[in-house]
Amino acid sequence: VNETPSNNLAALFDPQSIAVIGASDDVSKFGARPIHFMREGGFKGPIYPVNPRGGVIQGLTAYKDIRDVPEPVDMVIVSVPGKFVVDAASACAESGAKSAVIFSSGFAEVGEEGLLWQEQLRGIAAQSGMRIVGPNCMGMMNSASRAVGTFTTIFGQAWPKVGGISVISQSGAVGAYMLVMGIERGLGLRTWITTGNEVDVDVSDCVAHCASDPGTDVIVAYIEGAKKPEQMRQAFETARLNGKPVIVMKVGASEVGAEAANTHTASLAGADAIYDAVFRQYGVYRAKSLEDMLDVAQGCSIGHYPASRRLGILTVSGGAGVIASDAAAEQNLELPALPAPAQKELKDLMPFAAVRNPVDTTAQMVNDPPLFRKNLEVMLEVGGYDTLLIFLATIGLSATGLLDELVAMLKDIAKDQPKALMVLSMLCRPEVKRELETLGFLVYEDPTRAVGVIGTMRNFVDEFERPPQGQLPTLPATVRPVPGHTLGEHAAADLLRDAGLPMAPGSVVTSADDAVKAAESFGYPAVLKIASPDIQHKSDIGGVKLNLQDAAELREAFADIMVAAAAAQPDAKIDGCLVAPMISGGVETILGVNRDALFGPVVLFGLGGVFVEVLKDVTFRAAPFDVAEAHRMIREVKGYGMLEGVRGAKPADVDALALALSTLSVYAAQNADKLEGIDINPFLVMEQGQGAVGLDAVVIPRSETDVD
Amino acid sequence: VNETPSNNLAALFDPQSIAVIGASDDVSKFGARPIHFMREGGFKGPIYPVNPRGGVIQGLTAYKDIRDVPEPVDMVIVSVPGKFVVDAASACAESGAKSAVIFSSGFAEVGEEGLLWQEQLRGIAAQSGMRIVGPNCMGMMNSASRAVGTFTTIFGQAWPKVGGISVISQSGAVGAYMLVMGIERGLGLRTWITTGNEVDVDVSDCVAHCASDPGTDVIVAYIEGAKKPEQMRQAFETARLNGKPVIVMKVGASEVGAEAANTHTASLAGADAIYDAVFRQYGVYRAKSLEDMLDVAQGCSIGHYPASRRLGILTVSGGAGVIASDAAAEQNLELPALPAPAQKELKDLMPFAAVRNPVDTTAQMVNDPPLFRKNLEVMLEVGGYDTLLIFLATIGLSATGLLDELVAMLKDIAKDQPKALMVLSMLCRPEVKRELETLGFLVYEDPTRAVGVIGTMRNFVDEFERPPQGQLPTLPATVRPVPGHTLGEHAAADLLRDAGLPMAPGSVVTSADDAVKAAESFGYPAVLKIASPDIQHKSDIGGVKLNLQDAAELREAFADIMVAAAAAQPDAKIDGCLVAPMISGGVETILGVNRDALFGPVVLFGLGGVFVEVLKDVTFRAAPFDVAEAHRMIREVKGYGMLEGVRGAKPADVDALALALSTLSVYAAQNADKLEGIDINPFLVMEQGQGAVGLDAVVIPRSETDVD
Repeated sequence: VNETPSNNLAALFDPQSIAVIGASDDVSKFGARPIHFMREGGFKGPIYPVNPRGGVIQGLTAYKDIRDVPEPVDMVIVSVPGKFVVDAASACAESGAKSAVIFSSGFAEVGEEGLLWQEQLRGIAAQSGMRIVGPNCMGMMNSASRAVGTFTTIFGQAWPKVGGISVISQSGAVGAYMLVMGIERGLGLRTWITTGNEVDVDVSDCVAHCASDPGTDVIVAYIEGAKKPEQMRQAFETARLNGKPVIVMKVGASEVGAEAANTHTASLAGADAIYDAVFRQYGVYRAKSLEDMLDVAQGCSIGHYPASRRLGILTVSGGAGVIASDAAAEQNLELPALPAPAQKELKDLMPFAAVRNPVDTTAQMVNDPPLFRKNLEVMLEVGGYDTLLIFLATIGLSATGLLDELVAMLKDIAKDQPKALMVLSMLCRPEVKRELETLGFLVYEDPTRAVGVIGTMRNFVDEFERPPQGQLPTLPATVRPVPGHTLGEHAAADLLRDAGLPMAPGSVVTSADDAVKAAESFGYPAVLKIASPDIQHKSDIGGVKLNLQDAAELREAFADIMVAAAAAQPDAKIDGCLVAPMISGGVETILGVNRDALFGPVVLFGLGGVFVEVLKDVTFRAAPFDVAEAHRMIREVKGYGMLEGVRGAKPADVDALALALSTLSVYAAQNADKLEGIDINPFLVMEQGQGAVGLDAVVIPRSETDVD
Repeated sequence: VNETPSNNLAALFDPQSIAVIGASDDVSKFGARPIHFMREGGFKGPIYPVNPRGGVIQGLTAYKDIRDVPEPVDMVIVSVPGKFVVDAASACAESGAKSAVIFSSGFAEVGEEGLLWQEQLRGIAAQSGMRIVGPNCMGMMNSASRAVGTFTTIFGQAWPKVGGISVISQSGAVGAYMLVMGIERGLGLRTWITTGNEVDVDVSDCVAHCASDPGTDVIVAYIEGAKKPEQMRQAFETARLNGKPVIVMKVGASEVGAEAANTHTASLAGADAIYDAVFRQYGVYRAKSLEDMLDVAQGCSIGHYPASRRLGILTVSGGAGVIASDAAAEQNLELPALPAPAQKELKDLMPFAAVRNPVDTTAQMVNDPPLFRKNLEVMLEVGGYDTLLIFLATIGLSATGLLDELVAMLKDIAKDQPKALMVLSMLCRPEVKRELETLGFLVYEDPTRAVGVIGTMRNFVDEFERPPQGQLPTLPATVRPVPGHTLGEHAAADLLRDAGLPMAPGSVVTSADDAVKAAESFGYPAVLKIASPDIQHKSDIGGVKLNLQDAAELREAFADIMVAAAAAQPDAKIDGCLVAPMISGGVETILGVNRDALFGPVVLFGLGGVFVEVLKDVTFRAAPFDVAEAHRMIREVKGYGMLEGVRGAKPADVDALALALSTLSVYAAQNADKLEGIDINPFLVMEQGQGAVGLDAVVIPRSETDVD
């Protein structure tokens, strides 16, 4: 098991002893509910009510002060008015409590004073080591121990099934909604936590904890905005390497959405495309809806994943088979045909059936459990499908003994085939669904949705199997930091070349002799451009000469440019001329760096021309990343085919491109505090084996006022 | 109400008298079930059991022959073994029955003999005018009259609610599954029909009937493949013009899927992209899943649609508000802010609330029905939102009197605001959900799904509001039919120019003098190309000269080309040289026609270069279509921005492009039986007002063997 540095949240996620400040006998009060629910649920550890009046609360001895409680507890629940919270938190820290969950609202979400209180809470956490959740949160719940540090009334009505799914939410109400949806679907939960205003414990800390928590198999997180992007990335990577799926609903994708997110929390919402890139980078599944999130979580929670992309479809309806086949194609799942002898075997049993894959038995199968079993065995044992989608129509609604026989048969099959993933699509009475799920089947009413879950589960396997991030490229000894002023053209190219990027050679020369000398160092043809900070449209004034074939042409061009520049802009400061090799061919791409307000330097890749200008066909990665990640990034753009070669062109040198992107990411990360942005445009990727070369670049330092 | 030509299906969809051939007392038999269910359900018309044994069946007088039944019935159900079906159908036709529903299987899906029987059934239908459904189908059901012409056992367990949704399915099993899903969701159904092998009545006929049926408000269709594409298009257009949404699940999108569709039915699956184009052309919504199909159907069935794209969000959770906002952006819905005075009014009532839009009241609102009501009234009356998404979390699960108060308040609001569309997202006990739906609210657990339904409903309004197809362009008098041999280059250009398409002028000349004469008719610069059916790579042999500025250059070029051609390929047949104006600039596009096996001539549009070659960025329309449709088509490609002008370019002449596409579609439709394909590539669209011009074209006739 990979671990991130301990963030000391065990006492919070699985508290053995709990105190409640603001405890009460009146269960309409927030402070009363945790005690009530824990006693109803059977929490086994000591519970210490704290109330200035002392006495007995809900049958338990109450303490007037948290510092009077006879032991330092794992978790204190704080449910007092906002203005008393800082004092209460101090007292908790003094008592030696390991964590505090603060329900109280009236903090950053309200105004200045609350913001100040939050800073004080942050200080208490930092100094004492006591971890603080909230304020303005709905708290936490541990399903197995029945530790309930929340005031949501759900537990008055139902308890979640105990299982391996941990749910983390930045929104209390959405967290509660997911919890109830989860309970209604019979999801097996391990822990549930909402993080509120996040003065200390944030969503990244919680993901990190669950990523290393042996009892958590699946991590579900509702995220409005990350506060600790570096920790978030580490937590995602730990989860991936530990084979735990992270299923995220990240909201605020729309501008309007982002605005609403800002009014709702004090979160800083990074640009959505960057989040998207980070999720891809670490194999996080971004759910399309709450429902989708729980569908996938439920699938992953059964503990075994599709061993391959090979899917077998067994159906009582040809039409449903086609629906499932379409969905499989959408999910990049394969539908290999059943081997011919197996097809024959099934055809002999069911002359009317289609037996290739989908195997369409017609309705006959559900009326004949042994026949159904035979189909399953042939598909799993002879067909070698490790995953089956089984469409059973409405049999689960039937009230006949036949259904019991079918369920009994499925129970046997599940025992005989423990490695097979069998997903049922059918209509069921709730108790039938629950029973089938208990046997290890997944059950979804909609066949498209069922296949979607299979595809997403298989994608997780691919992500789990990717190795950890590899060695980053080492920058050459010549590397220099980003200077404090904007670098154009040739100075930017020099800086990036020194950092290990393949930039076209070129030098600024002040005489025709020097131009020839420079050109001879890299060979003809050459290009010559006026070098002047004052002249913007160099071509327009005759300041650019292309495709110069020899020294004579170069000399003539130098003289012409000088004359033209003097004529066009007599007052311009002239540094001389830039001489460079004339390079053409290759696939035009763009490499860039942008400083994201949240994630810091982010590397952009896109194809040039219309791909960027019309289609916005670009992708991102947070820096730094290795060459393998750069390869994945390159393959994400829609125009990737350009690099594979079109109209008979040979494939481009994608290795050189990937190395350049990874190198750029390392340089950007090393200069994170100094860098605003870099553009290398165009960056020409030549034929395979011929490398790549940047022709032009700009480097923009972070302005003084921005630097924190 | 727009009507398609009567297809005489009223007797089938709403039969007043029903006979059953193969009737029986044993309800395990298919032929017994319709009678049993109709009597249980209370069908009011006469039911005539037919059985060679006569006597009494299920308490009704049985007839030995359908011809003995005392009146010609609206519908005969035929449930006899396959080999007796043709005789039975003949007898039905003789009896004067208006329609026959044939359950029996063993036809085209089995083999040769069955195929022959189908042809005989087709003949009976054509000669008698009696409409035949099936064979190999699950039949039909009319929800209001309880006419049950199906053997599915569903009606032993539940009856659908009576309403305006008509469900049509080419698959019996999928149809039955949808029916049960619909019953479980409480959908109001009008009719349900499955079409089986479609010897006569097919899915298009059924859509056409429902499109003109006053009792049908919403049409839901599961389609594997159309058999009558022209009727399908007409039916879709009738539905659109009558303001009835058509919600389709078209399967077979994947290659594998299509294969399965072929084994399942005898359907001819047209290429999926063409179906997609036809759905867009007629405003049909293509559902992503069965679930999605029923979600949207349920939304549309409440009978009023969002009056605008303005959405108000009222939520008890900020997080859910962000989820809904993201979904709204995804659906192109607008979230205008509440007017400032209304914001103030709400803020005064709820100091903690966010009041812009989303209005986030926090949980307070569900505990205070008058406050909730106030919010609704302010949003509807002052905010002017005609559609509200209202997120109420888990209140629908509550067992308190508060929920009753809320429901009572919602009932009042629904009465006061009959035009508002109010969609609730909440968790509910089933009976609470049912009650709210009865009051006219839509209720979806998942907020993303709820907003998705609103967006789709609004898109329907846009489609309903589009005018009917307008006048098609008139082709000029010079138009000529497509000849029987392939036309290259200049002959193809001539043909298309004569058909009204703007093709560059050009003529094949055999002397330098003629070349000059031709060039003077259109002006310099000119291009000259060798014209020879034998020379493929004209540029390579020096057979192309561009940018010729005057007569002298043209003469020299003519001589050079002749020499070059003779040198390179002395045996080639030389027709002369093609002289044409040198045209450059404009946006490069491609227009084309392809004959689709199902829909006939289909027009393609795409942007040239990488857009087509790398991105396959093309779109289609079935021919013919008007200029307005061409405009919609043009805007569908991803690279549309190219035509709006990039890098400071002026917008292109999209009107000229649209006219060309529409004209091409008319020409293609007129030559449907003669035409295999047309390519106009490149077709240059010049600056706005400057028109467009095709430079090169190929016209391929349909080969003799193909013509049917």
